[in-house]
Amino acid sequence: MNGATSHAGNLTYAPIGIIRSPHTDPERTPIQPVYAQGCPGRAEVMPQYAEGLKDLDGFSHIILIYHFHKAGSVQLTVQPFLQDVERGVFSTRAPCRPNSIGLSIVELLRREGTTLHFAGVDILDGTPLLDIKPYVGRFDCIEGTRDGWQHEVDEPMAQLRGRRGYRPDHDPGGAS
Amino acid sequence: MNGATSHAGNLTYAPIGIIRSPHTDPERTPIQPVYAQGCPGRAEVMPQYAEGLKDLDGFSHIILIYHFHKAGSVQLTVQPFLQDVERGVFSTRAPCRPNSIGLSIVELLRREGTTLHFAGVDILDGTPLLDIKPYVGRFDCIEGTRDGWQHEVDEPMAQLRGRRGYRPDHDPGGAS
Repeated sequence: MNGATSHAGNLTYAPIGIIRSPHTDPERTPIQPVYAQGCPGRAEVMPQYAEGLKDLDGFSHIILIYHFHKAGSVQLTVQPFLQDVERGVFSTRAPCRPNSIGLSIVELLRREGTTLHFAGVDILDGTPLLDIKPYVGRFDCIEGTRDGWQHEVDEPMAQLRGRRGYRPDHDPGGAS
Repeated sequence: MNGATSHAGNLTYAPIGIIRSPHTDPERTPIQPVYAQGCPGRAEVMPQYAEGLKDLDGFSHIILIYHFHKAGSVQLTVQPFLQDVERGVFSTRAPCRPNSIGLSIVELLRREGTTLHFAGVDILDGTPLLDIKPYVGRFDCIEGTRDGWQHEVDEPMAQLRGRRGYRPDHDPGGAS
């Protein structure tokens, strides 16, 4: 039943579900949940994993790990959405990484059976979901970090570029 | 060059490197970086990804995504290390999840070529590394979250159980 198998060092995973969101165009999808505030979405987890979702609704935020299924080819340096400077891909969250694994921290609104409803969704519709972890303040909220080139981007610019055209008012979340 | 391929919905990734740490016994490995403070470790990234590491050393903390190579069989409910109550696996960070993907936020001390040296390592020696992302305060540090069953574990108990026998003084980090 373990979803991971290894051949010659490669690791194979089977999706545990799929993410549904109003975002169908990679070019107009917010780059992070903080730039997608209020945007509804859901994870449809496969029924065989229902038991594993127990206790998850005690958490206000969850970490979604998923496959960037529209990532395109790998680039080792990339111009981030927030800045016009080429950066090493591992210092960015861009999808064009050697392993197309994405990570988003979303607000969990409620669970209905094996469907998780959340807000702040920056993920494309149809994205294969690999794992769900609880966001735990004492593990995950680290204050006062030094954030490299991200510190060079001021907050208004980050908000403007991070949304990538997404407007909560014009996009009522039809997929939810 | 893209490390991910898909067959019948499965997703295959090739490790980008390997994690080296003093932890060789899963039973005595701290469960989170917060319980492994001061413990040194490193990621040895494959030389072909060197260019992708550019700019990473501007960040004080990085997110490592890796494969739990000693995870054992999948359990959908599990008794967490911090508490004697069975919980849904997706509400825990336990390795025995359907896809054995681990996530740790570690302090990046320095980069030497394609070797990243960090502190606060809760990862077993020899773990295959899948991805590196920068920890960005404005994306990742969410204050005031509701942390489900984790709130039932007080801090002294979490420290005691989270370390799992790891003592910085007795374990000078021989692997680093």
